[in-house]
Amino acid sequence: MTDLIPITVARGDGIGPEIMDATLAVLQAAGARIEPEFIEIGESKFAAGYGAGIGPEAWESLRRNKVFLKAPISTPQGGGFKSLNVTIRKSLGLYANVRPCVSYEPFVPTMHPEMNVTIIRENEEDLYAGIEHRQTHDVYQCLKLITRPGCERIVRYAFEYAQGHGRKHVTCMTKDNIMKMTDGLFHKVFDEIAQEYPDIQTDHMIIDIGAARLATQPSRFDVIVTPNLYGDIISDIAAELTGSVGLAPSANIGNDCAMFEAIHGSAPDIAGQGIANPSGLLLAAVLMLNHIGQSDIAETIHNAWLCTIEDGVHTIELEHATRTAKTNNTTNTMQAVGTQEFVDAVIERLGRKPSLLKSIAYTNKAAAQAANKRTESPTETNGSTPKKPWAVKQMVGVDVFVCAADFSADVLAAQLNAQTVSALDLQMITNRGVKVWPEGFSETFCTDHWRCRFMATSESIQHPDIIALLHTLTSQGIDVIKTENLCTFDGERGYALGQGQ
Amino acid sequence: MTDLIPITVARGDGIGPEIMDATLAVLQAAGARIEPEFIEIGESKFAAGYGAGIGPEAWESLRRNKVFLKAPISTPQGGGFKSLNVTIRKSLGLYANVRPCVSYEPFVPTMHPEMNVTIIRENEEDLYAGIEHRQTHDVYQCLKLITRPGCERIVRYAFEYAQGHGRKHVTCMTKDNIMKMTDGLFHKVFDEIAQEYPDIQTDHMIIDIGAARLATQPSRFDVIVTPNLYGDIISDIAAELTGSVGLAPSANIGNDCAMFEAIHGSAPDIAGQGIANPSGLLLAAVLMLNHIGQSDIAETIHNAWLCTIEDGVHTIELEHATRTAKTNNTTNTMQAVGTQEFVDAVIERLGRKPSLLKSIAYTNKAAAQAANKRTESPTETNGSTPKKPWAVKQMVGVDVFVCAADFSADVLAAQLNAQTVSALDLQMITNRGVKVWPEGFSETFCTDHWRCRFMATSESIQHPDIIALLHTLTSQGIDVIKTENLCTFDGERGYALGQGQ
Repeated sequence: MTDLIPITVARGDGIGPEIMDATLAVLQAAGARIEPEFIEIGESKFAAGYGAGIGPEAWESLRRNKVFLKAPISTPQGGGFKSLNVTIRKSLGLYANVRPCVSYEPFVPTMHPEMNVTIIRENEEDLYAGIEHRQTHDVYQCLKLITRPGCERIVRYAFEYAQGHGRKHVTCMTKDNIMKMTDGLFHKVFDEIAQEYPDIQTDHMIIDIGAARLATQPSRFDVIVTPNLYGDIISDIAAELTGSVGLAPSANIGNDCAMFEAIHGSAPDIAGQGIANPSGLLLAAVLMLNHIGQSDIAETIHNAWLCTIEDGVHTIELEHATRTAKTNNTTNTMQAVGTQEFVDAVIERLGRKPSLLKSIAYTNKAAAQAANKRTESPTETNGSTPKKPWAVKQMVGVDVFVCAADFSADVLAAQLNAQTVSALDLQMITNRGVKVWPEGFSETFCTDHWRCRFMATSESIQHPDIIALLHTLTSQGIDVIKTENLCTFDGERGYALGQGQ
Repeated sequence: MTDLIPITVARGDGIGPEIMDATLAVLQAAGARIEPEFIEIGESKFAAGYGAGIGPEAWESLRRNKVFLKAPISTPQGGGFKSLNVTIRKSLGLYANVRPCVSYEPFVPTMHPEMNVTIIRENEEDLYAGIEHRQTHDVYQCLKLITRPGCERIVRYAFEYAQGHGRKHVTCMTKDNIMKMTDGLFHKVFDEIAQEYPDIQTDHMIIDIGAARLATQPSRFDVIVTPNLYGDIISDIAAELTGSVGLAPSANIGNDCAMFEAIHGSAPDIAGQGIANPSGLLLAAVLMLNHIGQSDIAETIHNAWLCTIEDGVHTIELEHATRTAKTNNTTNTMQAVGTQEFVDAVIERLGRKPSLLKSIAYTNKAAAQAANKRTESPTETNGSTPKKPWAVKQMVGVDVFVCAADFSADVLAAQLNAQTVSALDLQMITNRGVKVWPEGFSETFCTDHWRCRFMATSESIQHPDIIALLHTLTSQGIDVIKTENLCTFDGERGYALGQGQ
């Protein structure tokens, strides 16, 4: 038990160094069995020409230690820079973003005193794949990708998390009434995997309604699992509802690696003044200690922190928020302290439990679940999903996208029809998803971006049929900008119909 | 002034007929100069085999009258049905969804008594184009399309709305820190058009932070303009924050046509009981009256409705909400009434103004703006945008997407490299947007969906070069599933770099 676990630590930019030093001081005082290895990322690396703010030594450290405690960094304004967080998450396969959002009334003012919701956000795919193309003069495109293994991992993680943390209910949120195939897949996988956890209650909400309910009645929720973009939005909503984003930690979990951080930014405006609140990063370190199997230390620190908060020892921004809020917290004397005094207060309280706020008891279950996730997952080995029999994929058509200005749909259709090859027939044309041929409406606003759907005249087509079509079209001067093959999988249609089709 | 304006009216499903009859009774009593023409849409039409719940006579009426007052309809559960609302919006080019969200404290309990925000949501494009493809065994895709004319219309509409309604501030929300090209375009167009409205203050917020602020401090916002999906989410949040979604109307505005409806659903569980609240639809009719230039009637009805609310005449669901909420509204005697009594109460109060709630004064400005939008728009004539000089588009490469299971990136790269044509070189391979070749990480989880980027070996390529590449690849058994051309526009890169590129 005295073996130290090496962890990679980035002190970050802005207030990062102060709050990291504060956090590490608490960890050391609490006897965390870790050995920090420091890397430099962020501002200095962006300046040195690394487009994502991270160099090869840092990658090497991360891949060796597999556990990363990260202070906030600053991303330079302007084009050409990739988000460091997104790069790390995706390169290391950190597919689960875990965000516990907890109220601390009356010590931190909030309209929602009862909330204790954890949001599990898919972290790698969806629109965040970052695949964008300007396709015509007028039209820009971003690809939303949702994969079955991606859905399976995150949904299973959410149920494992719920089970490991004594949670009772998992809510799935998607927009599958509109995106029936992509979000529909997420919802379907949720329903499938829920069967394996009969003790956990489940439901599904459309994201707009779910977000609205979360915003007004957050205490109704327990664990929420959702695709990347929705999770991004609702986890910020939930954090804000607790009354202070400055207290909220997050974990980014993969099969191999994991990253822990505060959710707030680097706050350069107050850097170096010794007034920053280290709580978000400290609670992230608590998540990390659980992850590496040191739940005893995690519990000690978390309870000492709760004692500090309920004793009214607050950094300046919380003290201010509490003083200006109409709370009933008249029995408590608020004390505005600096970062160092706050840390001293937490260290002083190590070993104590809160009396008003609910004390924390991290079970071995949570640690075991975390440890389990690190070494093996019930359904996957590293980097590959269990092999299912492949569906039989058959090509039945192709969507050819065309750039054409000053065209009417009918003129375009006539031109395309004159040039089809025997294997493929023009079935419809849409503009921004709305059918404009045949039988379009003159009211439909048309851009210079046309999707032309060609369907097989016989049962199926082969690649040469598509190539022949492209050859015929482009040789007549039609500006093809992209294609999307149309396939069936085990006979089931693998493409959406056009609006109005 | 005695000429009646024909409007198309759908009585809808569930509580639809009751609340439509109630609404029309108020309109008639108030002297609205309209002539309803009834159409049948929804359940009966779905049952009759119309996939979008609407038949040709209904379309004909809508296109003739151009103004549509619509009660909620029920969409059948299960696959194969298209959203009727989305179909109507897109077919008739209703590009602006307008959602005024107002608190009526203390008469309707809410945590946010001061809020009065209007959300202007782009209504046609984004992921709602509904273009989805299953591309491989594991991967599903939805296209997010953002167009320059689409952005220009909605942003200009938001500023015109603000100006016409005495609003001071327009906030734009996007996620352009991640989607730099698509959401970046929306933000850029916002900044451009804002220059034309120097009297209106503006700002931009990243949607996650913006949604969180809206959820906690909605009174900070005035007018918000945002792409489709974000608008969908935040307009539901805002409506819920007011304390009752049952009161909220929405307008869907196009250059030719406009549709007005309540935001709530058809509530089949309480249909036929005479207890439904007609307020959402009635306030939608108020928006409609403004739109057709009958602001005098709109103002009379709106003020009578406010009087009714502040007199404590509430339908059952509001009376219940108020009774159970901890409000200070002790001076008021709540009275739970049915739909008909509520309507009678509103009609009784026609000509009165509220004394506690703020009374409404619709200026001719708003009506003029609405009228103006119907006939001509400052920058567009129907269906086409002002012609700008086209950018010079040059093809410089192609992303070829390949379906391949049981492959490593290096093996795939070797196979692709062996087969390139002289005009194009393999530059990188990504999986779900993460670079896996060259120099990939073993931690990167790979699906069966690979994006292979080929770049021109000289300055540019032509269509035959892409076709030759496709021919070479597919003839060797590589399963190409789609392409995306890579172009520059006036020399500017029209495609995002790969994550880690």
